[in-house]
Amino acid sequence: MPLLKRLTDAIGASFVLTGSDMAPWTHDWTKTYSGTPIAVLRPANTQDVAAIMKIAHDTGTGVVPVSGNTSVTGSAVCDNKLALSLDRMNAVREIRPEGRVAIVEAGVILQNLHDATAEQDLIFPMSFGAKGSARIGGMLSTNAGGSNVLRYGNMRDLCLGLEVVLADGRVMDLMSALHKNNSGYDLRHLMIGAEGTLGVITAAVLKLAPKPRAYATAMLALPALDDALGLLNRLQDMSGGAVEAFEFMPRAHMDGHLRLIDGARPAFDQSYDINIMVELAATSPADATPGPDGSLPIVTLLENALVPMLEDGTLLDAVVAQSEAQRREMWERREASAEITFHNPVIVDTDIALPLDQIAPFFDRIQSRLAELDARATDICVAHLGDGNVHYNVYPSRDDPALKSQIKIAIEDIVQDLGGSFSAEHGVGLSKLSSMARYKDPVALDVMRSLKAALDPKGILNPGKVLPPKNV
Amino acid sequence: MPLLKRLTDAIGASFVLTGSDMAPWTHDWTKTYSGTPIAVLRPANTQDVAAIMKIAHDTGTGVVPVSGNTSVTGSAVCDNKLALSLDRMNAVREIRPEGRVAIVEAGVILQNLHDATAEQDLIFPMSFGAKGSARIGGMLSTNAGGSNVLRYGNMRDLCLGLEVVLADGRVMDLMSALHKNNSGYDLRHLMIGAEGTLGVITAAVLKLAPKPRAYATAMLALPALDDALGLLNRLQDMSGGAVEAFEFMPRAHMDGHLRLIDGARPAFDQSYDINIMVELAATSPADATPGPDGSLPIVTLLENALVPMLEDGTLLDAVVAQSEAQRREMWERREASAEITFHNPVIVDTDIALPLDQIAPFFDRIQSRLAELDARATDICVAHLGDGNVHYNVYPSRDDPALKSQIKIAIEDIVQDLGGSFSAEHGVGLSKLSSMARYKDPVALDVMRSLKAALDPKGILNPGKVLPPKNV
Repeated sequence: MPLLKRLTDAIGASFVLTGSDMAPWTHDWTKTYSGTPIAVLRPANTQDVAAIMKIAHDTGTGVVPVSGNTSVTGSAVCDNKLALSLDRMNAVREIRPEGRVAIVEAGVILQNLHDATAEQDLIFPMSFGAKGSARIGGMLSTNAGGSNVLRYGNMRDLCLGLEVVLADGRVMDLMSALHKNNSGYDLRHLMIGAEGTLGVITAAVLKLAPKPRAYATAMLALPALDDALGLLNRLQDMSGGAVEAFEFMPRAHMDGHLRLIDGARPAFDQSYDINIMVELAATSPADATPGPDGSLPIVTLLENALVPMLEDGTLLDAVVAQSEAQRREMWERREASAEITFHNPVIVDTDIALPLDQIAPFFDRIQSRLAELDARATDICVAHLGDGNVHYNVYPSRDDPALKSQIKIAIEDIVQDLGGSFSAEHGVGLSKLSSMARYKDPVALDVMRSLKAALDPKGILNPGKVLPPKNV
Repeated sequence: MPLLKRLTDAIGASFVLTGSDMAPWTHDWTKTYSGTPIAVLRPANTQDVAAIMKIAHDTGTGVVPVSGNTSVTGSAVCDNKLALSLDRMNAVREIRPEGRVAIVEAGVILQNLHDATAEQDLIFPMSFGAKGSARIGGMLSTNAGGSNVLRYGNMRDLCLGLEVVLADGRVMDLMSALHKNNSGYDLRHLMIGAEGTLGVITAAVLKLAPKPRAYATAMLALPALDDALGLLNRLQDMSGGAVEAFEFMPRAHMDGHLRLIDGARPAFDQSYDINIMVELAATSPADATPGPDGSLPIVTLLENALVPMLEDGTLLDAVVAQSEAQRREMWERREASAEITFHNPVIVDTDIALPLDQIAPFFDRIQSRLAELDARATDICVAHLGDGNVHYNVYPSRDDPALKSQIKIAIEDIVQDLGGSFSAEHGVGLSKLSSMARYKDPVALDVMRSLKAALDPKGILNPGKVLPPKNV
């Protein structure tokens, strides 16, 4: 029986898309990567996914899981393979407020989970700019990060249980809601971050946290980036570790925001080179109960910490949000980074991680190296500075693949030299295959290939992603 | 060349022990498991471990890594194989106070790491009764838990990087100190908890935390176990999540402590059925700065929370530690649990995890079931109640393997039915092989076997542990 006939028999003809119906799945969000699937499959449930994988396994057909399609690494792009979209599997199955867990299908959009947990005075503590489109399955498959990792961790830290369909269509049930469970190898963590190359995540048990009772949010301007780590440590120290976000935006980000985003307003009366958005969250009643004058203790704590820093020159400027609207405006400036960054398509974009004390040295070294390679190049970045995660991006002066490759290697060589990683939170996909070949421990790479061969012997799960070919 | 000659050539004759020199390695701590190794090997460094594994791989000889030998599951016991002791690899290589990481060899004893970090006003936030003997490599290989998991997580949550020697002697370098690093499959989490069946952990990068500025520690007596979860939630709520330990000890534990431990003193003036030790930690200066009368705000907070609970009957009794000596006494009572529990060798010991709201139902169900199976059996337990981790142990009235097996299955059937796990923090070893075969998702078990075959095709790493034979 022809492949498409078998697939329509399995999940219904309306959910096997071909031709122009596939348009949304033929390119990624950045339009850097494109391809034409054999068909786009939209399963309704785990059984459908299992049926699809059985057919794919039987016929040796490649399958590329697609979730919100917000990847910037090409990981969900698909050419002449089956695109498996999880978008219909979008149920928040259950929220257990006492146990502080949510049980969700892989296609749940992050914002929808935020809304569902808010009703229970709980949060799912992961957030980033694409929250209105990104879906849980893709976030788990790439071990997504974002702006609150400093306090709550990455996706893998927020996941207690998983359901996974394997390459041959068998369903693996790891849907535990337990905080301690040492019954054999941790297959959950193996699947998280594997970008759909070892299995298709179909459902998950996620950790929730109590909704903070109050926030204190501020924009700060610093004289030098070197001072940022000391500032973070001081704020953590005086607040007992209440810092939830510590986000760096240089002048180019601030300018890009004003130029490109409708309704954007400046953060300060003048512009500065080094801008940091900091947010503290109060979890105890004592820090969140307004005083007689209506002031919140957590906000007063932050303000009292900033005053001497303004006086002694640690800070050049500071604005503390006085309302939820002002706080939202600060977050929107930060969350516009993808729109700002990818506005110029001639780009070398990165997602690097550095030890906290190596961030300023990185900028010193790359700037002199960039001047040698392309004196007219410009750069822009945004950083989850508290995690050492820097999205450092270069706009070369010309759209020359050889130059772009040189710039990328220059960046990543410095990162490697400083004990960092070429991949912090976006994953590998297609864009970092050459970096994997160049920097990853060769023994670790061999082990990964052995695991891939063991779990997907026909090589049908997201072929060509994550693992570089042996002879690269 | 004979095996022992090759080994002595590789690591030196003084470090290849045979005959009576092997005595400490011929049985486990509980004396439940025993065996005679071919030899005990004491490598000095990673290169030695690699050399040993190359020889073992070449000759198809089984290798059992041994760390502090404090396992209660038989995981480090060895018969007619090479026991690989990490005890000489005991260097704390580096503590980076600013980056809050420690770089350690696998043989470092937990207490020694505690001492080394204390000098820097930092903590490695994992502790349990065996801290004076347990070594980091074994703690990672079993993903150890303990009493502070509630706040800081298990070993896997505290590990950023690993060095692992593979079955064939290759060294895999995953020694990252980064908080975000998505460069391919998470091999670190695969090795953690694998009990030495996939590789030998030789070094690790561990997370440190700021030393809490003050503690508030109390012994509480409750009318019923059902009330415990509500009590924990109230204490977390009023303190903004400052509870670090929430440990349950029933009357049998308290009595055993007084009877068996030298110098033990009672917790209360009278004895109670349901006793809980709670500890809150203050991380912010505001909670730890003594008031004019010398009182600590975190202690006052706890005392003020307990007073109305004593009045309304939520608590039957409460004692708050007024000094570090009183706090230590409370901890020593809790940490004596292994000595108390294993004093009677005719025991069915368990390490189960339950959803938090299923703990009281578990006790109800097991007690009526136990009455049917063995009316004269007694039980004892100690529980990390905040994690749902219960060490529920039964002393049958007679030393009958069939009866012991029935009791174990009765316990674990109820656990499985309530959504729990037969293995929370001790691991599988030999003692839970039959439970793995009975309760583990069969697809997950198949996947584990595929991974084992891929990484250790000759089956030489800790053979017979963790994975039940296929026909059990």
